[in-house]
Amino acid sequence: MDYGGNSGSDRVALEKMRRPYLEKHQVLDSSKLESQSPFELWKAWFDQASQVISEMGSPNEPNQMALATATRDGRPSLRYLLLKGHDETGFYFYTNYNSRKGKELV
Amino acid sequence: MDYGGNSGSDRVALEKMRRPYLEKHQVLDSSKLESQSPFELWKAWFDQASQVISEMGSPNEPNQMALATATRDGRPSLRYLLLKGHDETGFYFYTNYNSRKGKELV
Repeated sequence: MDYGGNSGSDRVALEKMRRPYLEKHQVLDSSKLESQSPFELWKAWFDQASQVISEMGSPNEPNQMALATATRDGRPSLRYLLLKGHDETGFYFYTNYNSRKGKELV
Repeated sequence: MDYGGNSGSDRVALEKMRRPYLEKHQVLDSSKLESQSPFELWKAWFDQASQVISEMGSPNEPNQMALATATRDGRPSLRYLLLKGHDETGFYFYTNYNSRKGKELV
């Protein structure tokens, strides 16, 4: 593959790659959310996403999540992993204490 | 909605919510990647993802990405945004210099 980035028409295509969010019924109105609790709202959205993914047979996993950590001097890193549980205290995932994220979170 | 977390059978369901990755043809073998260049590999995977999303009519956006930043004392934050371009020097997105990510990146 000849990699030269997406100059010219490709660049324009990627810049315009955005779904229209602004139809009236699609605007996010905080007063009309399923819940004002971030945990309840997350659960409602998670259930919606799970259903869409299941119905489409999509290769996506609804419990995929991004986790950011940072070193003490402010260098961030980020990785995707799978959500493994949740309750009123927060969200659970599995890792290894010796991994980069494990060390940065301790 | 009564939010009590996902104790009991729900918890088990979420823990087990994982697709099998380990069929032989699905194992990620670094010697068989489309390219050894991370930029070329990203482009190949991006094109694959775009095609799958387009064919399924999925609500996903192939150019969505997660961006982590951190304060100088190591407090990370993360948000999703849209990739707007790429070339051999890196990936481009749009933000505001006065936003949290804008300030933390300066």
